[in-house]
Amino acid sequence: MPEIAYLNGEFLPIEMATVPIEDRGYQFGDAVYEGIASYNGNLFYLEAHLDRLERSMKALSFPVVSRDKIKKAILELFKRSGIARAFIYLQISRGVAPRNHSFPDSADVQFIMTIRPVNEVPEKIKKEGAAAITIKDIRWGRCDVKTVQLLPNVMAKQKAIEAGVQDTIFVTEDEVVREATSSNVFIVVQEKLITHPLTANILPGITRAVIIDICRELNWPVMERFYNITELYGADEVFLTGTTTEVLAIIKVDDHTIGNGKVGPISKRLLEALQERGRH
Amino acid sequence: MPEIAYLNGEFLPIEMATVPIEDRGYQFGDAVYEGIASYNGNLFYLEAHLDRLERSMKALSFPVVSRDKIKKAILELFKRSGIARAFIYLQISRGVAPRNHSFPDSADVQFIMTIRPVNEVPEKIKKEGAAAITIKDIRWGRCDVKTVQLLPNVMAKQKAIEAGVQDTIFVTEDEVVREATSSNVFIVVQEKLITHPLTANILPGITRAVIIDICRELNWPVMERFYNITELYGADEVFLTGTTTEVLAIIKVDDHTIGNGKVGPISKRLLEALQERGRH
Repeated sequence: MPEIAYLNGEFLPIEMATVPIEDRGYQFGDAVYEGIASYNGNLFYLEAHLDRLERSMKALSFPVVSRDKIKKAILELFKRSGIARAFIYLQISRGVAPRNHSFPDSADVQFIMTIRPVNEVPEKIKKEGAAAITIKDIRWGRCDVKTVQLLPNVMAKQKAIEAGVQDTIFVTEDEVVREATSSNVFIVVQEKLITHPLTANILPGITRAVIIDICRELNWPVMERFYNITELYGADEVFLTGTTTEVLAIIKVDDHTIGNGKVGPISKRLLEALQERGRH
Repeated sequence: MPEIAYLNGEFLPIEMATVPIEDRGYQFGDAVYEGIASYNGNLFYLEAHLDRLERSMKALSFPVVSRDKIKKAILELFKRSGIARAFIYLQISRGVAPRNHSFPDSADVQFIMTIRPVNEVPEKIKKEGAAAITIKDIRWGRCDVKTVQLLPNVMAKQKAIEAGVQDTIFVTEDEVVREATSSNVFIVVQEKLITHPLTANILPGITRAVIIDICRELNWPVMERFYNITELYGADEVFLTGTTTEVLAIIKVDDHTIGNGKVGPISKRLLEALQERGRH
């Protein structure tokens, strides 16, 4: 099961794959990305990831890149690796040019990928639930575009690690709960699910959409509306959703125990339903 | 006068200098930078740039990098290039590691530089003044740290180019004027200078500090306080300051002519004084 990289059409060992220092992804964060996981040898919601990737590139006025070309490269990388439960990281930058803020007159986008086994959330945390802290959201105003402007996420995640918890949740100055460092947040209040609506301030998560779809099938009401930190602390259940996070129950936020401090039935059922979809 | 690159201790042609795709600067924007200019073979305010670089690395909890080592590398690059009026771009990233938001347990910082002749503002614009537009500031909350989280700056600068003007000025929702895409903004009202105070929302520009120092010498009052877009539009003079921008008079902002639409005496005098300092 080799971990390999893809670099503008070539497949090679990850440590051999390099980009010029004047790649705009390196000097300006002028790049978009996707993370795609597989279950049992099947890429999960690949088309949804391709849709979002196209949307991100459009938002940054990138030149059009053939969807078919991207898809073929992903499938070829996946096939070559032979990893059944894989995580594909894909990044496309605006290209290489002498440093200048404005778009280069002509530059070819740089397209890189890596594939590795999924770095799973530890089984114990998955089963027993995780703790999280909150932090003031100081990210930029286009978190709906999946770009590598991720330094605040890096700093927030590191703060979680140093606090001995799993993740950090971004909350605005007005106490609106946004999302975690690489996943969306749902809360459950009296058997109703609530999650932040799709605005410029959160990522339109694929897993978020899948969970909403599963809830629809189960006839479970989901409200996409703003909610604040008081509702978060007082919720019966809290969970994160993301491509490798799947559905992760949060049993403690800051100093507040969520519900009875155990993984709730709705979080549990949704994780099972998500993994069930992965198996088919 | 060769344009050359520096890469972790080596000097090489710019197009030969590459970094691994898993450099955190590439995948997370987890990197800081500086831009240093020279006049007549002398690097301008090198120590101030080194101070700011150290401050940026500290803000991101980078491992300590020897200031002496950085300085020696800069001086060697400058010497090898032989460019009298040079622009040195310097970037330090947290290092290379398999993608994971939290800091890697062990990774060596990556240190890269390029040197080229300064890309001067065209002489005509310098002499006759430039136009600018404004845009809502959607940048993150730590613009005081000089990181490569520059995508909003890229998009804003591109908007200026497409509007046929020189630059774009960031203004908050509350109409507070912040700074331009790679320079600070000063306004002159009744022979008093006003500029945004040093907060987390603007870069502590070296040229900004030099200009304030020159004003002190000239006994010209400078107020570091917030000012809004109405004061910007109604100012007698507006100018930008930056390492390669130097002092650039702005004679039009959006649809508003500044003063009499000509480069004002204070902007003119400050550009001369700045270049005078460069010559010594």
